[in-house]
Amino acid sequence: MNDLTQTPEMLIAAMGARARAAATALASASDAQKIDALRRAAQALRDQAPQILAANARDVENAAANGLSPAMLDRLRLDEARVEATAAGVDQVAILDNPLGRIIDKQVRPNGMELSRVRVPLGVIGIIYESRPNVTADAAALCLRAGNAVILRGGSEAKESNRAIHAAMAEGIAAAGLPADAVQLVPTTDRAAVGALLKASDFIDLIVPRGGKSLVARVQEEARVPVLAHLDGINHSYVDGAADPDMAVKLIVNAKMRRTGICGATETVLIDQAFAAAPAIVKALLDAKCEVRGDAAVQALDERVVAASDEDWDTEYLDAIVSVRLVDGLDEALSHIAAHASHHTDAIITEDAQKAERFLNAVDSAIVMWNASTQFADGGEFGLGAEIGISTGRLHARGPVALEGLTTYKWLVRGTGQTRP
Amino acid sequence: MNDLTQTPEMLIAAMGARARAAATALASASDAQKIDALRRAAQALRDQAPQILAANARDVENAAANGLSPAMLDRLRLDEARVEATAAGVDQVAILDNPLGRIIDKQVRPNGMELSRVRVPLGVIGIIYESRPNVTADAAALCLRAGNAVILRGGSEAKESNRAIHAAMAEGIAAAGLPADAVQLVPTTDRAAVGALLKASDFIDLIVPRGGKSLVARVQEEARVPVLAHLDGINHSYVDGAADPDMAVKLIVNAKMRRTGICGATETVLIDQAFAAAPAIVKALLDAKCEVRGDAAVQALDERVVAASDEDWDTEYLDAIVSVRLVDGLDEALSHIAAHASHHTDAIITEDAQKAERFLNAVDSAIVMWNASTQFADGGEFGLGAEIGISTGRLHARGPVALEGLTTYKWLVRGTGQTRP
Repeated sequence: MNDLTQTPEMLIAAMGARARAAATALASASDAQKIDALRRAAQALRDQAPQILAANARDVENAAANGLSPAMLDRLRLDEARVEATAAGVDQVAILDNPLGRIIDKQVRPNGMELSRVRVPLGVIGIIYESRPNVTADAAALCLRAGNAVILRGGSEAKESNRAIHAAMAEGIAAAGLPADAVQLVPTTDRAAVGALLKASDFIDLIVPRGGKSLVARVQEEARVPVLAHLDGINHSYVDGAADPDMAVKLIVNAKMRRTGICGATETVLIDQAFAAAPAIVKALLDAKCEVRGDAAVQALDERVVAASDEDWDTEYLDAIVSVRLVDGLDEALSHIAAHASHHTDAIITEDAQKAERFLNAVDSAIVMWNASTQFADGGEFGLGAEIGISTGRLHARGPVALEGLTTYKWLVRGTGQTRP
Repeated sequence: MNDLTQTPEMLIAAMGARARAAATALASASDAQKIDALRRAAQALRDQAPQILAANARDVENAAANGLSPAMLDRLRLDEARVEATAAGVDQVAILDNPLGRIIDKQVRPNGMELSRVRVPLGVIGIIYESRPNVTADAAALCLRAGNAVILRGGSEAKESNRAIHAAMAEGIAAAGLPADAVQLVPTTDRAAVGALLKASDFIDLIVPRGGKSLVARVQEEARVPVLAHLDGINHSYVDGAADPDMAVKLIVNAKMRRTGICGATETVLIDQAFAAAPAIVKALLDAKCEVRGDAAVQALDERVVAASDEDWDTEYLDAIVSVRLVDGLDEALSHIAAHASHHTDAIITEDAQKAERFLNAVDSAIVMWNASTQFADGGEFGLGAEIGISTGRLHARGPVALEGLTTYKWLVRGTGQTRP
């Protein structure tokens, strides 16, 4: 259906104009209508599971023929359980608290004007993502519930799956009487369309890249639209001298090894040299089949420890590898974290409340934890429901971003004829 | 003192590294210390008024020789009263509520983890501004109180004034035991330094341009750092058919004419054709020496009205000129505003509360008013104290931005050994 003479800029401008109109309609739609749309979309996903799986099978076949890695193929592949999980995710968004209309603050000025700040939709959101086709449903559901129109641009390897999932979402939305243009999928996998999306500041209020580092880097480099992005998760767990030994072993193994590929995984363990159970921590990691890269002091604790290079302290492994360093107490731990952290999630393990509070105050990261596993760094675990992503930026929203992060606010002034002197 | 072989990038990187170190020190400084720094800085401004005025006289002399316009010369020129007002402005920032450490929300998760979001400094802020030298003190004071380091880059025409004001601020800050690098002034007026600042995403967390449209446009075009910017204020006041005639006349004259050059001034007046006092409004504007550009219906109301062109509906005059249009009730007013507003400040004047609430909900602007003058669009009038600017963007902060907008938050998790299942 694409006009072959249409440039990517023309395509995105046309989609952007339709998205803006849909966003205006959504802003005045009731929350009940949005909930209805999500429930119908979830049902459409379930009803159309055969078509979605057939489309996905074509994508997987193509991708395998094109030599996509097994890890990428796994991300791409859907089965009945994954389609059901995707539909259930959309249903979950429908039961979250409505973020819109919430009064952030309210005051009466001395001249009698009543002033309030109220949450409203952000507008039009662009999502650029890679192989996971469930993002098509997840991201659309979150954007819609927060009153936003969304333009989705998925990876070329998932194009058939994304079309099928998008069709189900659009059907549910239209059945609820909302504009189907509220959720649009860029119909071409031409890379130039991404460039056009990144520059469409007239039409798009926020871009959220979801994918690997090279995608995020390209988006940050090229975007003329604000970006909510996730960079590295070089997360630290610091075991203080006053830590409970059993808790420390249990937390460190969980923080590193529960799932090594998620952004909340601990990548560096700092241990107070005064902590007697340091060898037990290193042993537990090694026994859990984690490669331990340590400084000389850590190598002395267990012969299986290999030498860490300078680079290790700045590496996000996303694998069963950890760097471990013995430090001279809290101050050296804080210095190490200030120098090497990616400001994502960092934790202290200690029974000393004063030291814990010092750590919570001093560490400048999106999430700072005391006696908890860094693997909890997740919107669902934080009670936010599904997340659109974890922001490592400092503006607008930091850490897990869910519905509230997809809103903005406006100031309402209710007067009785006040003029400014 | 500048090394002539130093590139602008090297200069900004060196300043940025010092700013980052100062921001770290500020983050752990007490609020009392920041207040003390501001009080000492205000006193230093008063004590050094003779030097500041002498520096300013040199700037004004140069600028006049270079043919700067009278309006720009007026912005540049300081006298004793303006220096005192600048010092008083710094004192005002010292009495605002501390934005840091405020708990945004707090919850206990089912597994017992306590989760809270707490306001913390944003980090390092870059301010790029034009001829008004008082910005050197105003912006520095706001950034400092919110715990941020700031890099200031003022206009070349104000360089001597800025240096003198900066010297007083730095002296006050150092006297309070805080790092003088918390407030740095770019020592060169080379335009390439602005470019380097706009790309220094490793060192700078937010850029705030303060100046005319060409400055803001350049910053938005070139910046690789997030920007908090103010674009147009094409503000509307809509006089509904159910408006009180006296209130309507009074509000419209104030909204347009109190000060025509501020961003909150009304630029377009929409009047319900059913409003009987429409001629009185047009007459009052004309009598107040405002040029009225109207459609045919408005021209029929008073012979002094000139014809509006299509362009007028999209023009921010910042002058004693207004465009006036008769509309067919609230719906047409909303359509006009959706098509032409710059999403800054728009108002309805009516005695009909239902229509007012519809307007407040439907208009997608940073500030939406009912029965009040758009000239109130100002951080001071909103009780925020001094403002760093009024944001017309939708991310992070919208409308008047003061201390809170110069902060971010972090998530604190306090556990008792929880691991993620």
